[in-house]
Amino acid sequence: MKKILNDPKDCVDECFEGFILSNSRLVRRVGRGTVIARIDAPIKGKVGIVIGGGAGHEPLFLEYVGKGMADVEIHGRFFAAPSADLILDGIKAADGGEGVILLYNNYAGDRMNFDMAQDIARSQGKKLETILIHDDIASAPRGRESERRGTTSDLLIIKICGSAAEALSSFDEVIRITRKAIDNSRSLGVALSPCTIPETGKPTFYIEDDKIEFGMGLHGEAGIKKAELLPADEIATQIIGLLLEDMPLSSGDEVILLLNSYGSTTRMELYIVARKVHQLFAEKGINIYSTEVGEFCTTQEMAGCSITLLKLDDELKRYYDMQCESPFYKKL
Amino acid sequence: MKKILNDPKDCVDECFEGFILSNSRLVRRVGRGTVIARIDAPIKGKVGIVIGGGAGHEPLFLEYVGKGMADVEIHGRFFAAPSADLILDGIKAADGGEGVILLYNNYAGDRMNFDMAQDIARSQGKKLETILIHDDIASAPRGRESERRGTTSDLLIIKICGSAAEALSSFDEVIRITRKAIDNSRSLGVALSPCTIPETGKPTFYIEDDKIEFGMGLHGEAGIKKAELLPADEIATQIIGLLLEDMPLSSGDEVILLLNSYGSTTRMELYIVARKVHQLFAEKGINIYSTEVGEFCTTQEMAGCSITLLKLDDELKRYYDMQCESPFYKKL
Repeated sequence: MKKILNDPKDCVDECFEGFILSNSRLVRRVGRGTVIARIDAPIKGKVGIVIGGGAGHEPLFLEYVGKGMADVEIHGRFFAAPSADLILDGIKAADGGEGVILLYNNYAGDRMNFDMAQDIARSQGKKLETILIHDDIASAPRGRESERRGTTSDLLIIKICGSAAEALSSFDEVIRITRKAIDNSRSLGVALSPCTIPETGKPTFYIEDDKIEFGMGLHGEAGIKKAELLPADEIATQIIGLLLEDMPLSSGDEVILLLNSYGSTTRMELYIVARKVHQLFAEKGINIYSTEVGEFCTTQEMAGCSITLLKLDDELKRYYDMQCESPFYKKL
Repeated sequence: MKKILNDPKDCVDECFEGFILSNSRLVRRVGRGTVIARIDAPIKGKVGIVIGGGAGHEPLFLEYVGKGMADVEIHGRFFAAPSADLILDGIKAADGGEGVILLYNNYAGDRMNFDMAQDIARSQGKKLETILIHDDIASAPRGRESERRGTTSDLLIIKICGSAAEALSSFDEVIRITRKAIDNSRSLGVALSPCTIPETGKPTFYIEDDKIEFGMGLHGEAGIKKAELLPADEIATQIIGLLLEDMPLSSGDEVILLLNSYGSTTRMELYIVARKVHQLFAEKGINIYSTEVGEFCTTQEMAGCSITLLKLDDELKRYYDMQCESPFYKKL
């Protein structure tokens, strides 16, 4: 796979520099590492929201910082967690005196470094709480939800958490609302082709030309089943079936439907999948309050898509609906 | 290339249906064809803006309808113009009594069908004007600008035209402002890999593994030169050099910089290119007022990117800055 790069080992730093130069109205660099803060952070009297994770999944998490979203992002190395010292820089930049929430995907490497930074910051008297996103139903069975990986629900969780904080909810309230949004979210994806890593130029895994894999992780982690390349309607039906088995929904329930492309899957394909999900939910009497379609969490140029459902109540809807402005995602 | 489709010959209609179902708060279907209007169109007292073109380039043009953007879009067949009868439906849906502007890319097929519809609508007493977008400097030399193809400046032109109409500028004023925006725009792209057509599953053209092509069109039209796969900084430098040769800019000039991915090129790569363009323009004293990074005009999963420059003045800046809300593009 050909990519537009200079020295591949500089890809994360150069992307970060280009991002800062391109979005200087909304974000600023913190220190000398790959840490950004919204332009007006820290905001006195507001709970600070810190997000972050490995690079290579852009716009995640880099571009979800701004009003009604996160205060600070710590961008890691390629497919690898940010270091604890950068996370400490980030915590400081987000701290408006009402406590700071560390919100990120449940991966061992991220947990290790964020926990280390959290311990140090707490020892310095900071009020901190960690909230892990764990929406991927392929990565652990029911009953062990907290062991699951975080994947493509990220945008929705960051949106609701960030807007709850923006509304000046208390530290405990932002935590409660964010945990509810996570408990109400499920995702499952299907991969059609691998991605290549800039430094090696090599694919991360192999899929036969006539096969797809359900539940593959963002870094090529093994999925739950391989299948023939199915029609879009059948892929949508199978994913929705597995999601509803995991999180039953009834007639009258209301959800956000998010369709994510991992990279080279087009918006045309996502809308074809969206069509089938809308049809399935209309039959079941489940109301789709909002449909988000895009590349929210990518794995380089991997082909495939994921479906995220977030079950709403009036409170979650209120924070989802609030205005926000980040480089990638805006709501009027 | 594997894609998530049902019967490939239904891909345009199914995408369109999924799009309508996913965006029912902002747009509605017009008639029984692939025509959409913003939910509140036609708007009495406002100049109507009609856009459209072939499918397969989503979000273009489908997702640029809404407040401060276009009133109506007519979505064609795959890589092929919409029919005159659908365009007539669209003109009617956009007509708020102050005239309708047909704004689309300069391709022979589109011109033929839009002109036919325009002739019929004029014979029915409608006030109409056609404005062709022609930003691609690779497709005709200087002095023959009006023969050039329209490409990736579309988002910016539609934004400025739509916002000028939203501000209730007169018919003649919207035309003048839009033509100025087009005259002030230039684009050039580089392709790294071909795209595949859903119906055939075949690539549209061939590029050697170690080559790239400057100036390739959105449907595989031949470019202006082939080169070795160059580093990102060199690609940026060469594209900017050719753009500035075509539209000289001086220290103190102000531009919008738009970086478009044709499909599988990642945001990471676009930001690496953005970094170099910002450096080049800082050296020249050219001010980048805003940087837009994304997949605004795609060619399925083709790898490659294009750079668009739009030279600003106070008037163009005012309309670019106005609030807008379309399914794909929003501004607070």
